[in-house]
Amino acid sequence: MRDCTLAGTRRTLFQRIQTIGGRVLIVPNHVLEMLVRVRELYFRKGHETRMLPDDAAYAPFRGAQSASRASITALWEALGRLGKPGRNSAALLADADTLDSATRYSGNIENMIGTVKLPVGVVGPLRVRGLHADGDFHLPLATTEAALVASYARGAQAATRAGGISTAVLYEGVLRSPAFVFDSLLDAGRFVDWAVEQVETLRAAAEATTAHGRLVSLEPVIDNNVVFLLCRFLTGEAAGQNMVTIAAEALGKAAVEHCPVPPRRWYVEGNFSGDKKATSLGTLTGRGRKVSASVTLPEEIVRRVLRSDIDAMLDYGRIAGLGALMSGQFGAQAHYANALAALYIATGQDAACVAESAVGITRMERRDAGLFCSVTMPNILVGTVGGGTGLPSQRAALDLIGLDGPGSAAALAEVTAALCLCGEISIVAAMAAGHFTAAHRKLARGR
Amino acid sequence: MRDCTLAGTRRTLFQRIQTIGGRVLIVPNHVLEMLVRVRELYFRKGHETRMLPDDAAYAPFRGAQSASRASITALWEALGRLGKPGRNSAALLADADTLDSATRYSGNIENMIGTVKLPVGVVGPLRVRGLHADGDFHLPLATTEAALVASYARGAQAATRAGGISTAVLYEGVLRSPAFVFDSLLDAGRFVDWAVEQVETLRAAAEATTAHGRLVSLEPVIDNNVVFLLCRFLTGEAAGQNMVTIAAEALGKAAVEHCPVPPRRWYVEGNFSGDKKATSLGTLTGRGRKVSASVTLPEEIVRRVLRSDIDAMLDYGRIAGLGALMSGQFGAQAHYANALAALYIATGQDAACVAESAVGITRMERRDAGLFCSVTMPNILVGTVGGGTGLPSQRAALDLIGLDGPGSAAALAEVTAALCLCGEISIVAAMAAGHFTAAHRKLARGR
Amino acid sequence: MRDCTLAGTRRTLFQRIQTIGGRVLIVPNHVLEMLVRVRELYFRKGHETRMLPDDAAYAPFRGAQSASRASITALWEALGRLGKPGRNSAALLADADTLDSATRYSGNIENMIGTVKLPVGVVGPLRVRGLHADGDFHLPLATTEAALVASYARGAQAATRAGGISTAVLYEGVLRSPAFVFDSLLDAGRFVDWAVEQVETLRAAAEATTAHGRLVSLEPVIDNNVVFLLCRFLTGEAAGQNMVTIAAEALGKAAVEHCPVPPRRWYVEGNFSGDKKATSLGTLTGRGRKVSASVTLPEEIVRRVLRSDIDAMLDYGRIAGLGALMSGQFGAQAHYANALAALYIATGQDAACVAESAVGITRMERRDAGLFCSVTMPNILVGTVGGGTGLPSQRAALDLIGLDGPGSAAALAEVTAALCLCGEISIVAAMAAGHFTAAHRKLARGR
Amino acid sequence: MRDCTLAGTRRTLFQRIQTIGGRVLIVPNHVLEMLVRVRELYFRKGHETRMLPDDAAYAPFRGAQSASRASITALWEALGRLGKPGRNSAALLADADTLDSATRYSGNIENMIGTVKLPVGVVGPLRVRGLHADGDFHLPLATTEAALVASYARGAQAATRAGGISTAVLYEGVLRSPAFVFDSLLDAGRFVDWAVEQVETLRAAAEATTAHGRLVSLEPVIDNNVVFLLCRFLTGEAAGQNMVTIAAEALGKAAVEHCPVPPRRWYVEGNFSGDKKATSLGTLTGRGRKVSASVTLPEEIVRRVLRSDIDAMLDYGRIAGLGALMSGQFGAQAHYANALAALYIATGQDAACVAESAVGITRMERRDAGLFCSVTMPNILVGTVGGGTGLPSQRAALDLIGLDGPGSAAALAEVTAALCLCGEISIVAAMAAGHFTAAHRKLARGR
Repeated sequence: MRDCTLAGTRRTLFQRIQTIGGRVLIVPNHVLEMLVRVRELYFRKGHETRMLPDDAAYAPFRGAQSASRASITALWEALGRLGKPGRNSAALLADADTLDSATRYSGNIENMIGTVKLPVGVVGPLRVRGLHADGDFHLPLATTEAALVASYARGAQAATRAGGISTAVLYEGVLRSPAFVFDSLLDAGRFVDWAVEQVETLRAAAEATTAHGRLVSLEPVIDNNVVFLLCRFLTGEAAGQNMVTIAAEALGKAAVEHCPVPPRRWYVEGNFSGDKKATSLGTLTGRGRKVSASVTLPEEIVRRVLRSDIDAMLDYGRIAGLGALMSGQFGAQAHYANALAALYIATGQDAACVAESAVGITRMERRDAGLFCSVTMPNILVGTVGGGTGLPSQRAALDLIGLDGPGSAAALAEVTAALCLCGEISIVAAMAAGHFTAAHRKLARGR
Repeated sequence: MRDCTLAGTRRTLFQRIQTIGGRVLIVPNHVLEMLVRVRELYFRKGHETRMLPDDAAYAPFRGAQSASRASITALWEALGRLGKPGRNSAALLADADTLDSATRYSGNIENMIGTVKLPVGVVGPLRVRGLHADGDFHLPLATTEAALVASYARGAQAATRAGGISTAVLYEGVLRSPAFVFDSLLDAGRFVDWAVEQVETLRAAAEATTAHGRLVSLEPVIDNNVVFLLCRFLTGEAAGQNMVTIAAEALGKAAVEHCPVPPRRWYVEGNFSGDKKATSLGTLTGRGRKVSASVTLPEEIVRRVLRSDIDAMLDYGRIAGLGALMSGQFGAQAHYANALAALYIATGQDAACVAESAVGITRMERRDAGLFCSVTMPNILVGTVGGGTGLPSQRAALDLIGLDGPGSAAALAEVTAALCLCGEISIVAAMAAGHFTAAHRKLARGR
Repeated sequence: MRDCTLAGTRRTLFQRIQTIGGRVLIVPNHVLEMLVRVRELYFRKGHETRMLPDDAAYAPFRGAQSASRASITALWEALGRLGKPGRNSAALLADADTLDSATRYSGNIENMIGTVKLPVGVVGPLRVRGLHADGDFHLPLATTEAALVASYARGAQAATRAGGISTAVLYEGVLRSPAFVFDSLLDAGRFVDWAVEQVETLRAAAEATTAHGRLVSLEPVIDNNVVFLLCRFLTGEAAGQNMVTIAAEALGKAAVEHCPVPPRRWYVEGNFSGDKKATSLGTLTGRGRKVSASVTLPEEIVRRVLRSDIDAMLDYGRIAGLGALMSGQFGAQAHYANALAALYIATGQDAACVAESAVGITRMERRDAGLFCSVTMPNILVGTVGGGTGLPSQRAALDLIGLDGPGSAAALAEVTAALCLCGEISIVAAMAAGHFTAAHRKLARGR
Repeated sequence: MRDCTLAGTRRTLFQRIQTIGGRVLIVPNHVLEMLVRVRELYFRKGHETRMLPDDAAYAPFRGAQSASRASITALWEALGRLGKPGRNSAALLADADTLDSATRYSGNIENMIGTVKLPVGVVGPLRVRGLHADGDFHLPLATTEAALVASYARGAQAATRAGGISTAVLYEGVLRSPAFVFDSLLDAGRFVDWAVEQVETLRAAAEATTAHGRLVSLEPVIDNNVVFLLCRFLTGEAAGQNMVTIAAEALGKAAVEHCPVPPRRWYVEGNFSGDKKATSLGTLTGRGRKVSASVTLPEEIVRRVLRSDIDAMLDYGRIAGLGALMSGQFGAQAHYANALAALYIATGQDAACVAESAVGITRMERRDAGLFCSVTMPNILVGTVGGGTGLPSQRAALDLIGLDGPGSAAALAEVTAALCLCGEISIVAAMAAGHFTAAHRKLARGR
């Protein structure tokens, strides 16, 4: 070790740092920085009314519920009158192809003014050896982050060379949690007693709304006078968020109609199901599909494909696990969100679900055969029908993967977890070998 | 209240439910459901090797680092030889416009095979009365979820009629957390002592890599022999994720080079900063920009625009807050992720950041003037330069908002929070009035 | 509002604060404070070997497994030879009564050297109108914190005057989670399939170890190659932590012995059950007993007994709820831990369980009849037999409450929750009225 | 591997399990179990009014603020008139020694009726090589859990033989978070601006209330119109909870008095500081003292003293870490609460603080020299003066440890962390070797 002179001379320096004219600086610097800026903004002349409501008239703007060439054109005209669009915003968003296919988007969006084009890169072949998915896949990823596709491609290459990624859906079921509010704990208890007794009636009401949904679990959760009925639905090949809302509405209506202890109020969703939020509930019980994926990478593949070595990756893995714990993640992982956002967008899934899907646990361990790597992700929400999966380019992306028909949503969930595993492998290798920054600098240089 | 016969006859039914031939069913039904499916999949003939690695050769596939008409065409040819593409996938992803502008995407993606087109709807005018943003905005939202744009538009109308949304950036700074591993707690302490003494040197090294980034806070966090240096950077008008990585790399290198107590290993990111993950750290300290937004809605606007009433909204707000607590969110909110994903995608932000941005606190309270509503969101990550903001249609979407130049990223962050507030207002009103399910059913009907 | 001169002159002051000789102070002050102290400690002469291991011989010390007058005396002699005891430590810890009753403590402690005496205060009458507990209770609280007993007594008075606290056990069951480690996800799945099929065998093995325990739920939770069997036991009138360990050991052994897919390793507890830790699992599923308790306080009682008013309490309740959310509690409450520690210690419960019990949700709402207040606490771990409940003074404290026989543990759990509710009511009133600090100052003044 | 017949015959069994007469059992069994019991309790004759308020008169009971022989006797007489006490409760709680020393407890408790006696076992010698603590310690633990003292003693022996445990206080400071409520975000911002400018005035007001407390950090945290001033105090040799309350009250009063933007309401504690609650805030920033402790155990000590081996301990450590992650702890540890409760009770600390102290991170890694083990605990709240530390037997216990004078609280915090580390080592060894259950069964057998 080099000589370490933590010497006395510096002590005076410290003392100088700490005080200025007797003042101790106990407010953090980033607060001061912010305040300096706020003062500049707020105390500029004419800024006295900043942040106060303003009742001046506003230019009304009328939207359009369904989409067509005419409706899009009309909206741009209205925006034009407001002086809003940039130079050629209309041409870039409402291009000829989009106008030609505009009606295809009705039912997926309101007030449509065009399409945004996200570049799609392909990763593969990724060999998946799953309970539902079995084959070598090429996966379309929509992203604007340089190095992302390259990183996943590297992980996929390593995993495929190692014989592929073993996957399985472990649990399945989209949660909805209608909430019922009573006068008292006593009434809440009587309602639960009744609801459990009548569970078949409630189930029948829910399932009458859907050809594909099935209610497989109903658990009452009570907080004094409030009852949440935590409902878990199978949703077939759809991600199923709308399906379970409609089914839960029917279930709740049936409960309220027949129950001898009617609630004062009830809601189709008590904000308890974890829909589009990272929650400890979702992390524990799963929402959508819980999938585990693993592969064991021989030392040689770690060296040649990932340009790292097993010990170095395990060393970083320990630190990454520590960082995850200290920062308070749900689970412990590096960047599931990258794969999830890119694959969800490309294939017409609901990108907002990245918020709930991006939780889980990545593990790495030494095995005789090399480096064992796994991800277990409790909240994968994907479908091969419904949502945006039927839109032209999204369907084209799904076709590239080649999954449809019975079991395809579960298979897509397994492929999704396998892809996330590739990303974890690649980033851990890059961090371990010190390549992470360089890769990002290099691949973004063209911009 | 209707008569509530929780009578004795049912007790026998319960007993029958609980046992079958003396067996108590103590395993949850959804586990049984899954096992039945697994057995069907796993024990079908020919499925014995499912989930085992397979060393069969795979068809190699060579990617392309930069994008051009030629590279895209070549990749589709390669995919075609693999028999991968669906009927007209190539035509839909690699359309003429995309091929014409292919080189524009170099530096944002690798292995590019085309673009996916997401429909963009517009919400506005949304009046924002912010510290940075001030005006009536029309916001482009890219989504495939029916009812989403309509719901935000309704919230925006209510807020604008009420005089607009008051907003302010509260804190600012993107976190990076290089990690340094030592032999002992003692060495870790000596390193920290040195690093704090030399903080100006470290700051200079970091800031030398960037024209716009500034290191405003450095806090050592120790777990025995491991030191994380939690660095907070201002990143100008960029979201800044790459900028802070490069700056942290330089800071770490400077530390390792000069420190008399060199670490055994170090990493540019110890998975502690919360990058692309919902974490309690990010929720507490903020990452990116922490923004608060609020508006007070008069009773009449609640009735006419939102078709609900204040008490009903407060009643639901209490249940939604309870559900948030019970499910273990970071903060308590309903669906920030919807606005974030839609706006991030439309304007070329990093959609993976939805995972970290979708946390915060929504509050509603009765005031003399009506219903006070606020959101406080600690992790908004947006920029008006860098990332995907320069791509053709994304730039067009940004131009529609009309924010650029100094202060525009902070203004965009304020607009983002204001938009999220509109969504919270609208969904709470819909839940309170019982319209939520109907709206989704109606607007998705066209599919 | 008084005039608020956020004037320009101060801006220069700010700038002076921020820098000293060009240095920006980006390290937080409390870090600097700590480093100054560390330097003083570490760089004092003779302190060079601080924090390094020291292989010098140590004086051996032989403990005593069971307790008796003789063993206690012998241990004090040994400590005396080491020069350890203070002036009259032996006399105060090993007093005559303790020596007389020493053997009573065998089986509850090892290496016994005496007893520590905690003052016990009484709170009551507290009227509890529960599913299991019904009556007016006087509760013994062991604490050394001034104002604690007085605060709970005030809450109890308010609640009792309002007709008493309504309570119910909602769920019941102590969790244990034996863990089984396999080679692969595939083997883990095969084990789960087998275990679910053989669940009756496993249950029988577990229940054979106990006269009072019953296994009421078994849920497999998988992370790739690792299976946790989450077991929920009813434990009769005991808190039951040892009971469930022994039962889970038998269950695990039966599984390992008979399973055709034997695990590589297994453990009686995979650190998943939340034993003696606050966890999101325990908060969600309950561990021990989940109890809800509520009361509605008329305005007059709020005024006369609590010296506050309903609006003021609701106002503070909102802020306390916000603080809970922002600080990241499990649930949202003010100080359950005070009641729990005091009652657990007085009645021979395991005080370490305060760590897991002190989570849950406190709610307050305006009702026609006054202020509705409730607590819902998912993890109350109490028994009326076993643990320390049979020790002399602990039994005396339990006798004062007057609960024993069948259903007494559930009743004690309900009383515990009711007591916690009293504390929440009292502290919210004190905070709302601004009395909190004064009460603490006054009641601790005698020290 | 033994043959694994997951055969077809069982499938029919499964189907039988799942349904009874066409009913699918989708409600979890433990809910059904509870409901059966509730029905028995609730529908018994005469139980119709269970859980309803009861306005019957109650027997009033008058407490006593300070404690004396007379006050204790009077309270027992009052209880006797109520028919409350068990056979000889008074004799056991209000024994002769307690009555003799009753006045010593005034200022620590109200309504005192006696003392509860907890058995104290001793663990040691535990060699601590700390920044503040340096020596071989014998530690008094008050517990009624069999095997606890023996387990810690074993860990202490292993650590001491290995040269002792290296420890350091990393951060220090008890948090308080007065909350200020304004009309608007704008006013909140103006208040923060003023408070930061006047921070020296606020600090002076706070520090004027205390001879030992120092305010070392003040950070404003805003949620729209609500401002929390997160204050971090050094508290000298006291745990300091009352000290910081009084100081924060003075700070808040000074702010409200002088601020040109007076708040509508303010509270001395906004329930944000994490006082007596496990929180993510406390886990991240530390509350009280953050201490790290570590030791490296040679293989031979692991074998001889712990009767396990390093690989087995690491194997279990990985599973325990996984269980911690999956169950959602703050950090990851096994049972800090056991040591904390036992040491806090014995030495007159506030046992309720176990709720906040029992969080942190335990790590184990293989090193050349053996098994590296560490704990890092951010929230240790101990003092050597104040609270219950001056009570007779508690002082005697503290004297046994031998820490007093300047730096003794920090030293005690380091000893506490070292003790927790011993417990982690011992339980991991016991779990790894499969001895855990047997040890508990054996040592509790005498009861």
